Amino acid sequence: MINKSNKALVLLSGGLDSAVVLSICRKQKKEIHAISFDYGQRHKLELKYAKWQSDFFKCLSHRIFKIDFYGGSALTDKIEVPNNKKVEDIPEDIPVTYVPSRNIVFLSFASGYAEFKDIDNIYIGVNAVDYSGYPDCRHEFIKAFEQMINKSTKKALNGRKFKIMTPLINFSKKEIIVLGKKNGVDFSMTSSCYNPVKKKNCGQCDSCLLRKKGFDEASMIDPAENKNV
Amino acid sequence: MINKSNKALVLLSGGLDSAVVLSICRKQKKEIHAISFDYGQRHKLELKYAKWQSDFFKCLSHRIFKIDFYGGSALTDKIEVPNNKKVEDIPEDIPVTYVPSRNIVFLSFASGYAEFKDIDNIYIGVNAVDYSGYPDCRHEFIKAFEQMINKSTKKALNGRKFKIMTPLINFSKKEIIVLGKKNGVDFSMTSSCYNPVKKKNCGQCDSCLLRKKGFDEASMIDPAENKNV
Repeated sequence: MINKSNKALVLLSGGLDSAVVLSICRKQKKEIHAISFDYGQRHKLELKYAKWQSDFFKCLSHRIFKIDFYGGSALTDKIEVPNNKKVEDIPEDIPVTYVPSRNIVFLSFASGYAEFKDIDNIYIGVNAVDYSGYPDCRHEFIKAFEQMINKSTKKALNGRKFKIMTPLINFSKKEIIVLGKKNGVDFSMTSSCYNPVKKKNCGQCDSCLLRKKGFDEASMIDPAENKNV
Repeated sequence: MINKSNKALVLLSGGLDSAVVLSICRKQKKEIHAISFDYGQRHKLELKYAKWQSDFFKCLSHRIFKIDFYGGSALTDKIEVPNNKKVEDIPEDIPVTYVPSRNIVFLSFASGYAEFKDIDNIYIGVNAVDYSGYPDCRHEFIKAFEQMINKSTKKALNGRKFKIMTPLINFSKKEIIVLGKKNGVDFSMTSSCYNPVKKKNCGQCDSCLLRKKGFDEASMIDPAENKNV
């Protein structure tokens, strides 16, 4: 009989951060269920990697929710993904790759699904250090979301609380990569690029730049760098 | 040029309450956009009524989001919808028709879509008086949700706040019906039944019972009562 609090629901994007989150849950011998979202992202390849990671880290289930998203972002619409060339050039403003309320929608699904699957702890790989400046990646958002669901679900009214777990929120990209390597993450099977071109990572979107900075600082070679994606 | 605060995004289920919310926005001469959700509900007829209401009340747009929902509710799964026969028999517990996090997911979509459409005010017909006891219909939830989105969206960080408008939250079903009648709502084009049987409202689910109580207290005949649905 598995202790309920040993169950983990992991939001798995197919990117580097959520793969590391998964590796943390595996190390902790959790009973892991994973979910991903097919929301019309142009970098849909990440869903293949999410599936691969969920198998590799022995998730008990992996469900991909197909959701009909609104537009307004360079990740889903015909808006050009910015090419900043250098990590120092990433502007401090919220970029056009911001998808309005994306993590709000994802965590909402996660909370409903966690209630359905009787899971208390929801893991998400948000990061507020080396990140693209999305407002729904910050600590304030996570706290507010947790408070909100704990006022609005049958589970919470019956005395069980949800916990949104963000093990990477204060990590630099370097620290995430070092931890992932230690935990056996195969980074060649993670996708970060917002805008793969001709089966290669573009190398110039914010996400590629932050990833490269992380591998450089960790003095590691990114196995996905020249790989066909 | 329309004042931004005159724009309204209305969550339209096709039921009685949201039709009345729509009529309130029309009376207030708002520029109305409506959204509905196709989430696998067994009472899908409500989406036809939502479309009808959006046309009747001259919404500028009406978008139906198709979303792949998790299970766990009598509204979406093969779980029997309770038949309580009398309104006094509706148990105080949260019923099996509760869909975990449904309004959380719906409002999350609404907040993202409102940001995309540059709308500040989101209207939802939740009601905490004559309702089925869902935790995500209560005032505490609405407040917590509003606080959460105002910490997590680009719009809010740029100084514009979302407001979740719940004009019916403290109304009895009778009061909602009386207001709707005054505002020209055609109740024959609203659907409340959780479980229509052979094209008729079942008359015995919580939603049918609460609706009947409202019409009785308003001394009105429900035009949908014996209608084919």
